[in-house]
Amino acid sequence: MEIGIIGLGKMGGNMAERLRRAGHTVVGFDRSPQSSRDVDSLESLVGRLSAPRVVWVMVPAGDPTRATVQELGGLLSPGDVIIDGGNSRYTDDLVHAEELRAKQIGYVDAGVSGGVWGLENGYALMVGGSTEDVAKAQPVFDALKPEGEAGFVHAGPVGAGHFAKMVHNGIEYGLMQAYAEGYELLAATDVVTDVPGVLASWTQGTVIRSWLLDLLVRALEEDPDLAEITGYVDDSGEGRWTVEEAINHRVPMPAISAALYARFASRQDDSPAMKAVAALRNQFGGHAVRSVAKGEAEAPA
Amino acid sequence: MEIGIIGLGKMGGNMAERLRRAGHTVVGFDRSPQSSRDVDSLESLVGRLSAPRVVWVMVPAGDPTRATVQELGGLLSPGDVIIDGGNSRYTDDLVHAEELRAKQIGYVDAGVSGGVWGLENGYALMVGGSTEDVAKAQPVFDALKPEGEAGFVHAGPVGAGHFAKMVHNGIEYGLMQAYAEGYELLAATDVVTDVPGVLASWTQGTVIRSWLLDLLVRALEEDPDLAEITGYVDDSGEGRWTVEEAINHRVPMPAISAALYARFASRQDDSPAMKAVAALRNQFGGHAVRSVAKGEAEAPA
Amino acid sequence: MEIGIIGLGKMGGNMAERLRRAGHTVVGFDRSPQSSRDVDSLESLVGRLSAPRVVWVMVPAGDPTRATVQELGGLLSPGDVIIDGGNSRYTDDLVHAEELRAKQIGYVDAGVSGGVWGLENGYALMVGGSTEDVAKAQPVFDALKPEGEAGFVHAGPVGAGHFAKMVHNGIEYGLMQAYAEGYELLAATDVVTDVPGVLASWTQGTVIRSWLLDLLVRALEEDPDLAEITGYVDDSGEGRWTVEEAINHRVPMPAISAALYARFASRQDDSPAMKAVAALRNQFGGHAVRSVAKGEAEAPA
Amino acid sequence: MEIGIIGLGKMGGNMAERLRRAGHTVVGFDRSPQSSRDVDSLESLVGRLSAPRVVWVMVPAGDPTRATVQELGGLLSPGDVIIDGGNSRYTDDLVHAEELRAKQIGYVDAGVSGGVWGLENGYALMVGGSTEDVAKAQPVFDALKPEGEAGFVHAGPVGAGHFAKMVHNGIEYGLMQAYAEGYELLAATDVVTDVPGVLASWTQGTVIRSWLLDLLVRALEEDPDLAEITGYVDDSGEGRWTVEEAINHRVPMPAISAALYARFASRQDDSPAMKAVAALRNQFGGHAVRSVAKGEAEAPA
Repeated sequence: MEIGIIGLGKMGGNMAERLRRAGHTVVGFDRSPQSSRDVDSLESLVGRLSAPRVVWVMVPAGDPTRATVQELGGLLSPGDVIIDGGNSRYTDDLVHAEELRAKQIGYVDAGVSGGVWGLENGYALMVGGSTEDVAKAQPVFDALKPEGEAGFVHAGPVGAGHFAKMVHNGIEYGLMQAYAEGYELLAATDVVTDVPGVLASWTQGTVIRSWLLDLLVRALEEDPDLAEITGYVDDSGEGRWTVEEAINHRVPMPAISAALYARFASRQDDSPAMKAVAALRNQFGGHAVRSVAKGEAEAPA
Repeated sequence: MEIGIIGLGKMGGNMAERLRRAGHTVVGFDRSPQSSRDVDSLESLVGRLSAPRVVWVMVPAGDPTRATVQELGGLLSPGDVIIDGGNSRYTDDLVHAEELRAKQIGYVDAGVSGGVWGLENGYALMVGGSTEDVAKAQPVFDALKPEGEAGFVHAGPVGAGHFAKMVHNGIEYGLMQAYAEGYELLAATDVVTDVPGVLASWTQGTVIRSWLLDLLVRALEEDPDLAEITGYVDDSGEGRWTVEEAINHRVPMPAISAALYARFASRQDDSPAMKAVAALRNQFGGHAVRSVAKGEAEAPA
Repeated sequence: MEIGIIGLGKMGGNMAERLRRAGHTVVGFDRSPQSSRDVDSLESLVGRLSAPRVVWVMVPAGDPTRATVQELGGLLSPGDVIIDGGNSRYTDDLVHAEELRAKQIGYVDAGVSGGVWGLENGYALMVGGSTEDVAKAQPVFDALKPEGEAGFVHAGPVGAGHFAKMVHNGIEYGLMQAYAEGYELLAATDVVTDVPGVLASWTQGTVIRSWLLDLLVRALEEDPDLAEITGYVDDSGEGRWTVEEAINHRVPMPAISAALYARFASRQDDSPAMKAVAALRNQFGGHAVRSVAKGEAEAPA
Repeated sequence: MEIGIIGLGKMGGNMAERLRRAGHTVVGFDRSPQSSRDVDSLESLVGRLSAPRVVWVMVPAGDPTRATVQELGGLLSPGDVIIDGGNSRYTDDLVHAEELRAKQIGYVDAGVSGGVWGLENGYALMVGGSTEDVAKAQPVFDALKPEGEAGFVHAGPVGAGHFAKMVHNGIEYGLMQAYAEGYELLAATDVVTDVPGVLASWTQGTVIRSWLLDLLVRALEEDPDLAEITGYVDDSGEGRWTVEEAINHRVPMPAISAALYARFASRQDDSPAMKAVAALRNQFGGHAVRSVAKGEAEAPA
């Protein structure tokens, strides 16, 4: 079938390629003239597709996605479907679907997992929308998803796809933190002398074997002490949203929150909170503080 | 080769069976006459094996293992090797190895993962000990481990095997908690209408695919709302030890600790800490407390 | 001076009383005819005050406060000032102030702490607003606050008062949880035989003495084992908002979050997350689960 | 009465002074000739006291205390009493008391709180031991404790004093962390423009007023942005022990643990765990890492 893809970056570009390999006709657009775009405007993209059109939006979440969906809403026709495959918050989906409903344009939100490996392995897809809208794009989903039974789910009405992807990413934070804490403890002891070997051994037969573990083993093969990188960890928003939704739903979420906070802390040059604790200890106990000037512990005057 | 196995429970019994299938000669002993034991005493077991003997101890950690190792120390000869395959704390290994060294009996600690699936899939093994001692038991390790490159590691000197297994289990706690928190959030929202379907879809192509996820999907296939079981979760000790070692090594371990505490809390009928918080809120704000007598919220007199 | 107070519940009623004792003229209104209201409508209340009027809103946060502020906006005159003394989220203040600005009506948000003790001890006040608006209500603040230097702060522009109060309550959650965890550990050991005595002793000379500790000691005097109450703890919103703002500002907030999650968990009959963990352990290890039917641990079939 | 004090550092020296002011006869000893010691050996100290002697040990916990108690055990007579006022782990007390019992020497463990303020304000005391032994030292306790009803407790048998002090310090960690997290959030927002003012206002009339809050206000008066110190926070052991005892007693302790882990993290130049997370994100998503060499974010090759 024909499909338009807007956004040809690391993810969108590979997805276009995977769809073409599966025999679909892809019309790609990207704001950047340096991209491998097929058309130079949304109008042209819409013009190149036969109705009912399916247009996949794969641009950064937030304002870029909102602007793109709105502009598409003015160009598409009743019966067409927009799929937001980006990392949008599910609450945005509810707004988008509502806006497009008046124009009889369908809307599907698709959470996509798989990263840079998706081109070859396929992309796991969690989609939300009406049965009718999802059906219009099913051939696209079938081509993108991995081979086998799993890797695709129609999770519920509009918003369910991004909600599921958000939770997926929240879990991902927790899993990564668990492996990382275990790794740090192994690295901290003298008892275990082959830390990369231990992790490599875990990739078969253990309860904790996983794809993330495979990746950590790969990383340690390339850099056995992780000496080349710093422990600075960004976050893309979905971990934050997961914790916020947990709070909204009164769900205790201590482990995933711990993972999120560890990322926040990893990006601080110094912690205002720990300055306050240091100041307090100094006040009541005369405990030494590290002054900024001297950079070392010293007893306060 | 010949091997003695002490403890023929769920784990030891299956391991004996896997070794026999691989062509090894197993002499099994268990305290219980109802077991499938081959001999009725440790003396007989030692007598049935040719030197240098390899004896695998697979009994509960703590006193049972300590007693068994000590008794074996009195029966074995220089050059023999004891393997502790149970879930002992690595500090016990250091004591055992020291005691046996005087008698020139070797000692290897083996962390074993794989659970009830090990008979068919193989057992992942993390071992600690001298190169010489490990070599004596290598054919046994080769038969027990899963097929493929991974699933076995000589992690370091005595203690390294159990230390690695301890950390493995600590990570396991964290992974399970992360999936569980995500599951609870999915189950708490109305947006996602097919929770088991979402988890099943994650088993291919996603960043969070893992064997534990496969098992959770299986559990939800059998009981889609987990309505048949209660959220009471025991712990076998290795999670506690992992956190204790983290503290000993000054390693921040917030996510794995959260998983451990969630288990503790799951086993409390009521939380003394939360009683104290409820009492405090009542004191300063006149907030309603739930009295034990009435079982419902009420404003205090 | 004259002041109107809307909402004569536990807090508003006591504040009206404290203001009267200080010689101010209070005109009180409450929706309920059973209250000690002075007038039976907002119109009457406004009519009874001389311009420039100061009206203190002390109704539940959220819709009730929003509706009251909106209605007042239609009744008051340029130069009048509305004070929201409830537990509103600071983002509501920004909306209210904006709406009222067009009508030249001033707006001050006031976070109030002190609970049922405020009538006698005074209410700590954190206010946000313009210097001019705050000045109009200063006599009211002076009468409400405790004696002494502290207990009142003009924390910044509109929103600052409720933001400060929100953080105050978040800290309160953390403090209460810390005492509660310590209490539970004391109660769990056999070594300490006089737990209430230990807490009572801490109220003088220690680093951890505080008003909350005094209250916990009081509670234990009344019920030494806290046997009369259950560990069910509600939350009024400000703890949730504090954590949400921490996430918005990328501030690691592990201890206060732990306190919040402990409250969420205290209100669950059973934990879906821990059901999932129990199900997982059963899948990989054949560990016993507690079935709902039997209410006790049993090995699975 | 007469009392021997061993260890005349920041704590012991001030305690000796407070006892002298109360009219007691203090014989002080310290290893250091530069100290204000009255005698130059333990033998001399014991020789200067009349039986039954009371000797207060105030030296660093662990080996120094153990060595001092053991040496004293060889010098004292039946009926004498040793008080360990240091920050020993309560398990050490059990050993000490057992050793001394054979010699009919009494033993009391005393947890002491009050820091550098104790000389003027008094020291809060939590003691463990037999009624008889505690009675022998009661005049000393009475002189050291703050004025008023509270500030002293006979918490139980030997070990109870240090156990109570350990929990006191664990709570202290949690309280400090709660204030610190709240402080950081206030400092992170633009809404509140007078952060030190807000904290100062909280010292009267609020639910969260406390001595620690007073100290934080003092610290902010001296350095309003805490610009002069770094967020490096040591720990003296009792926080670690508190969490370990929580684990031993299966007590969920998430907030105090969070405080402990925040201290561990504050002392790391870089976090091995977060390196692992960064490496993982790079593996699956091609997310940028910060290389050590360049010190800035960059996309990996």
